Amino acid sequence: MRVKHKPWAREKILAHPEVCVANPEELKGKWHQLFGNENPIHIEIGTGKGQFVTGMAQANPDINYIGIEVVESVLITALDKALAAGIPNVRLLSVDGADLLEYFEVDEVARVYLNFSDPWPKKRHAKRRLTHSSFLDIYKALLPAEGEIHFKTDNRSLFEYSLVAFSEYGVLLTYLSLDLHNSEFEGNIMTEYEEKFSAQGFPIYRLEATFKS
Amino acid sequence: MRVKHKPWAREKILAHPEVCVANPEELKGKWHQLFGNENPIHIEIGTGKGQFVTGMAQANPDINYIGIEVVESVLITALDKALAAGIPNVRLLSVDGADLLEYFEVDEVARVYLNFSDPWPKKRHAKRRLTHSSFLDIYKALLPAEGEIHFKTDNRSLFEYSLVAFSEYGVLLTYLSLDLHNSEFEGNIMTEYEEKFSAQGFPIYRLEATFKS
Repeated sequence: MRVKHKPWAREKILAHPEVCVANPEELKGKWHQLFGNENPIHIEIGTGKGQFVTGMAQANPDINYIGIEVVESVLITALDKALAAGIPNVRLLSVDGADLLEYFEVDEVARVYLNFSDPWPKKRHAKRRLTHSSFLDIYKALLPAEGEIHFKTDNRSLFEYSLVAFSEYGVLLTYLSLDLHNSEFEGNIMTEYEEKFSAQGFPIYRLEATFKS
Repeated sequence: MRVKHKPWAREKILAHPEVCVANPEELKGKWHQLFGNENPIHIEIGTGKGQFVTGMAQANPDINYIGIEVVESVLITALDKALAAGIPNVRLLSVDGADLLEYFEVDEVARVYLNFSDPWPKKRHAKRRLTHSSFLDIYKALLPAEGEIHFKTDNRSLFEYSLVAFSEYGVLLTYLSLDLHNSEFEGNIMTEYEEKFSAQGFPIYRLEATFKS
């Protein structure tokens, strides 16, 4: 997603420590303390404008959500949504998904959401795809044995690549839809991007997966 | 596929032993002798009207093809196509896919094709799907370690089911297309059914897989 650079974004993020966590490395192993409960923590990598993570947090008050978005000029839109929702179970981080193990202790996160991730269509950029084996290494290290990856996208090539990458890695598929909006799946919270592209008639692909023990 | 019963089908099949093998159990371990060469043997389970198996045999003279179709009234259409092609590297069998191990020795078959297999949409019929674990057991027993399953279908539910079943079984995906006719895949030979349904704009799903060692 190309976005206009907003030099005041960082200032706005720092002005809202109740939602945007500025020192995530200091919270490693202490996220449950931050939320003030022992509810499961689910993270979304590439939160974008935040409709999904905020919507999920509203729909599931017994789960803590952390939205991760490296682009600060985008994260501030998610911040607005979280502030408007006024709920205690959502936090936002402006960090790189590749560095997750610096911010979370093993087993601290129960689920990883990947929604409409950048497809990085060029082969030489395959390593940047959030379903590349180098990222699967991170998720495997992060998640407990029964932890889950939930992934949806409208990008056919990325989904094809991901299914093959998951198979090679030995990730176990537990759910699959090749047309989410025409499936029996209930409780789907749409991202901003999903609303736009599904309205054009493109199928949304979705999977759930876990690491084999 | 519902077809008109043709009581003379068996007679026609028996009249063409050069294509239709009436005693496959006697050929177990001897199929290469039958073909008169050591070329790889590829089988298609559910050959239907035979356009795929005949087309593949014409396109690949260095591979031996065996089309398997339990419905004799359908197999005779495949027989007509094979006779018209007049090629030495195709045979047809009217047997049940569940009994393959009675007709083939371990490692005798190098590849299994499943094309537009019956989706058996009801959950209680899942065991009849050609990608159910009970069939994967058969293919695994049949194929050498590097042997392949090539599967294509327009049926979304069957493909979703199959990808999850393959993952659970530990089958390794090596190729995947969620829209075969808009992919870079070359050399696709269409089945009769594929011609009809892809013309209506439905995507064709396709995968290649092998058993992990």
